[in-house]
Amino acid sequence: MTKGNINVSVENIFPLIKKFLYSDHEIFLRELVSNATDATLKLKHLTNVGDAKVEYGNPQIEVKIDKEGKKLHIIDQGLGMTADEVEKYINQVAFSGAEEFLDKYKDSAKDSGIIGHFGLGFYSAFMVAEKVEIITKSYKDEPAAHWTCDGSPEFTLETADKTDRGTEIILHIAEDSTEFLEETRISELLLKYNKFMPIPIKFGTKQINDPDFTPKTTTDKDGKETTEPHKQITVDNIINNPNPAWTKQPSELKEEDYSGFYRELYPMQFEEPLFNIHLNVDYPFNLTGILYFPKMGQDINIQKDRIQLYQNQVFVTDNVEGIVPEFLTMLRGVIDSPDIPLNVSRSYLQADGAVKKISSYITRKVADKLKSLFNNNREDFEAKWNDIKIVIEYGMLSEEKFFEKADAFALYPTVDGTYYTYEELYNKIKAKQTDKDDKLVILYASNKDEQHSYIEAAKAKGYQVLLLDSPIVSHLMQKLETTKDKISFARVDADHIDKLIQKDDTKISKLDDDQTKKLDTLLKEVIPSEKFTVQLEPMDSDAAPFIITQPEFMRRMKEMQATGGGGMNMFGNMPEMYNLVVNTNSALVGEILGTKTKKKQERLINQSLDLARLSQGLLKGEELTNFIKRSYEMIK
Amino acid sequence: MTKGNINVSVENIFPLIKKFLYSDHEIFLRELVSNATDATLKLKHLTNVGDAKVEYGNPQIEVKIDKEGKKLHIIDQGLGMTADEVEKYINQVAFSGAEEFLDKYKDSAKDSGIIGHFGLGFYSAFMVAEKVEIITKSYKDEPAAHWTCDGSPEFTLETADKTDRGTEIILHIAEDSTEFLEETRISELLLKYNKFMPIPIKFGTKQINDPDFTPKTTTDKDGKETTEPHKQITVDNIINNPNPAWTKQPSELKEEDYSGFYRELYPMQFEEPLFNIHLNVDYPFNLTGILYFPKMGQDINIQKDRIQLYQNQVFVTDNVEGIVPEFLTMLRGVIDSPDIPLNVSRSYLQADGAVKKISSYITRKVADKLKSLFNNNREDFEAKWNDIKIVIEYGMLSEEKFFEKADAFALYPTVDGTYYTYEELYNKIKAKQTDKDDKLVILYASNKDEQHSYIEAAKAKGYQVLLLDSPIVSHLMQKLETTKDKISFARVDADHIDKLIQKDDTKISKLDDDQTKKLDTLLKEVIPSEKFTVQLEPMDSDAAPFIITQPEFMRRMKEMQATGGGGMNMFGNMPEMYNLVVNTNSALVGEILGTKTKKKQERLINQSLDLARLSQGLLKGEELTNFIKRSYEMIK
Repeated sequence: MTKGNINVSVENIFPLIKKFLYSDHEIFLRELVSNATDATLKLKHLTNVGDAKVEYGNPQIEVKIDKEGKKLHIIDQGLGMTADEVEKYINQVAFSGAEEFLDKYKDSAKDSGIIGHFGLGFYSAFMVAEKVEIITKSYKDEPAAHWTCDGSPEFTLETADKTDRGTEIILHIAEDSTEFLEETRISELLLKYNKFMPIPIKFGTKQINDPDFTPKTTTDKDGKETTEPHKQITVDNIINNPNPAWTKQPSELKEEDYSGFYRELYPMQFEEPLFNIHLNVDYPFNLTGILYFPKMGQDINIQKDRIQLYQNQVFVTDNVEGIVPEFLTMLRGVIDSPDIPLNVSRSYLQADGAVKKISSYITRKVADKLKSLFNNNREDFEAKWNDIKIVIEYGMLSEEKFFEKADAFALYPTVDGTYYTYEELYNKIKAKQTDKDDKLVILYASNKDEQHSYIEAAKAKGYQVLLLDSPIVSHLMQKLETTKDKISFARVDADHIDKLIQKDDTKISKLDDDQTKKLDTLLKEVIPSEKFTVQLEPMDSDAAPFIITQPEFMRRMKEMQATGGGGMNMFGNMPEMYNLVVNTNSALVGEILGTKTKKKQERLINQSLDLARLSQGLLKGEELTNFIKRSYEMIK
Repeated sequence: MTKGNINVSVENIFPLIKKFLYSDHEIFLRELVSNATDATLKLKHLTNVGDAKVEYGNPQIEVKIDKEGKKLHIIDQGLGMTADEVEKYINQVAFSGAEEFLDKYKDSAKDSGIIGHFGLGFYSAFMVAEKVEIITKSYKDEPAAHWTCDGSPEFTLETADKTDRGTEIILHIAEDSTEFLEETRISELLLKYNKFMPIPIKFGTKQINDPDFTPKTTTDKDGKETTEPHKQITVDNIINNPNPAWTKQPSELKEEDYSGFYRELYPMQFEEPLFNIHLNVDYPFNLTGILYFPKMGQDINIQKDRIQLYQNQVFVTDNVEGIVPEFLTMLRGVIDSPDIPLNVSRSYLQADGAVKKISSYITRKVADKLKSLFNNNREDFEAKWNDIKIVIEYGMLSEEKFFEKADAFALYPTVDGTYYTYEELYNKIKAKQTDKDDKLVILYASNKDEQHSYIEAAKAKGYQVLLLDSPIVSHLMQKLETTKDKISFARVDADHIDKLIQKDDTKISKLDDDQTKKLDTLLKEVIPSEKFTVQLEPMDSDAAPFIITQPEFMRRMKEMQATGGGGMNMFGNMPEMYNLVVNTNSALVGEILGTKTKKKQERLINQSLDLARLSQGLLKGEELTNFIKRSYEMIK
């Protein structure tokens, strides 16, 4: 038996990094600017604890393009490296300097925001550069070092004459990567990844009006005023906001700070968010962030992937699937947490304990915020309801804990614009809308226009009619029916109103048995049985003579399936089922029975059926055209 | 100045692999089975060219779970390794054996399907295993070798007593990866990644009826027949199809082979595809594959990501964005090409020359196939049109080359179900539908039901009315209007029919100037001007008395914007614009003017307006309920 060490063939480490480290080459800039930030924050920490006897000052990071020389420079004023440190941190691949630093300064460094997650990051420079130079001067009293490497494992190291503290990385951009010499491309990348990093990043300069100069206004002899031109000065163009809103305490921020930050995040978004939720926790995990509720409307397929995930102010991704509960991925904003593992599979992420805790913390915070908005300004909450209900309903369906909490603030609006909580609704309607079997029937409409006549019939009885029009509300009703005791939902056109909420009093029909039988025969001769099931009902004499209804169960199952019910395929293929309710107490029915000629009877029935179909939106195409033609004739 | 070599710290290579190599740990199985396939195909090649004097036989790969021992075995019967080769290929990380092999046997190996893309693949085993063993016996006359490594850089290597040729990899699955000891999980992974790999993969056994055994049937004294039970035998459970349809020549395949392969690809898909396109090219790039047109309907947001990308029969991804032109990502099927670079960014992919060529080859093949389907069986092509038009229209809008080719097969169906090509349509209608300014007006409807009365009016004039109802057709009309000479599209309800196609002959009004003025005043008193612009027109006396129209331009701009017009935001917020066309030659207008009381005139106008609104789908809610109530009164 032989023993040995696996030998990592150094010749192959660069192709390996190039191929596998990151699939997206642009990441190199994030990595190098992160390292520069890291080096600066480390110096800050050392000066704070007294281990570095130098002036920290107001350091910044500079990114500079040298298009002619095909070079990109990243320059920081951080702690720098001695030649020994270059040997240790740069020449030993896969040795994370930040990790060692964190080990040494464990507790005191924890809050100083040192990134230290991208130990291998420096080598990502070779994804875009054919040669990389480091010129670095340590804060310690040692000469500056100059390291050069062309992507082979061979490097050179010599002293340099740099005198100011910090590190300059020079990338000699490779032929296939010249896009990274374009100002617009670098600017785009800095804005994507480094927009909120904690050290100011300079990229070029810009002209502004000199704040110390006040233009003089002179008046000539004709009384004409002339103002001299404003003096322009050149200043650094700082591309980032080192102190974004989410890093501050909620007490430091006003409403306009939150909406200002929203515009920083989404400059192309013109609509204001409805409200925000400031996340801020440091035990048992570290998480800060601000979430915004945008106006959502009815579209369940709203663009997700708008929440940005940061780690210590470095942009990581805008895919927060698995971290944020699914129903909240419709929100916008920022989450910053060093405790979320990266580079792991989604399935691992969802099983991770810390991530689970983060997810349920976010759910709880959102529920608490909604409750406080409801309690503090109900009017405003009601006004926003239609734009947020889809998130809340989705949350109630997908997260049991959220369902429980939402009972306090989920609203049920009526067609007349009154908003009830479930409890308020219950108390309001229980006396009138409890049927003879002691079941509470909650009436609703999905469209005020389309179901207008049915709504009117329910209102005439003194019933409340909810307007439930979100695409997933059928699922929510199903859930409420199984959670709450003895209630059921019924759409106003599911049957005629006396049947929807059946009371003990039986209605008396004006027709005797013979007349009823005669009417039934007559109707069945004219009404196509494959389309409508005829149902004779003694109703109020002034109720509509003919009403078309669609039974609740089948319709709701079809709707649930259309919006992702799953496993209920059988309903989707069932034909639409309609009943024709004929009011035996209506004057029209008397007319039909009283009419002598069969032809006239048929015309009366057909015209009444057309009107009933019109009311349910079922009269279309040629039938509608013919109905209209007939009607023009009639008014002439 | 010092020179030196960058030192890759070996202690860190395993964490590095674990962290960065693949974000999804399950990939290890694809890698190991690929290596096993590779080793088997290499042996096949060596025996073919006479370099290996052994029997190739019918080798297979076996995957075996030892749940108690917490081990997963991958066993092949390929060329195996000597101890020296283990030293060379395994102990030197990042040294791709397949690459060296390909270098040596360059030209002859090219067609033997050797995978060789996953040089680092073996080490992915350490993503899920705490210890890995290799027991391997080369086809050469040398003793077997046994290599063991626990994830530290230290390994042991000793001789083993394995006598049959090939390699066995034993993974001692780590505590956090026990999911990979579950039969269902491994089976799922094999089906996901290895379903079509070229060497049979055995995973367990299954019971089948013994094909060599015919059950005897005996008759007892009562004449009752008894058949003895069938004899069961145990056979290997082969999980893959080593010879999938796309690897064969089109000439070898029948229609049922294509539909059979579709079911292999999408076992949960019950609908048959409409037709398929077999891709097969080896110069200037290598590509095989089969694309299927599924039934698509009207939904532009159909699930994409159904086309699977393979490299030499190894599944890579189902995201073919950037490789297949966007409009074809709605299709399904398989593409297999070793020439598509992996692990690169999408932007790089889109700029890559080979990928561009592949993309335009696929576009051309699809266009050619559509043309030949159209030419060979037009009836069938027409029957499928509604299910494929969305892809074709999208392609016409997004790929100029496809637009040109599509002129030969893109269809324009009429409301009566006649399908014209553009040229046929042009010849059919140019005589009748050219207006006085020599412009050809193509009439269309978007909905046969909703626009029924307008369609009838156009048909009464002998005009053809197209049914153009796909969600992006407004963009296509816009493009056709700018591409073709002197044509314009107009929806049948954009104006009344005499105005839509204006001829030289002017209609004479029955009303004199005084009557016209009186009518105009009367109408303007009753019709709300903020909703309708009143337009008096002398039309045929039997045309509808009142017609509501909606001008083409504004409506189309709004539609285009709703389906992603971009940059036309201004139209989205404009209110709907309607005209009320009043036919001054209709009997009803005479009636209105002839009626004495103002009240009766108003009732006539209002009822006519309601009927016109009904015809355009504009009478809703309370207004509809009131109209129906009034109408019930009228028929009594």
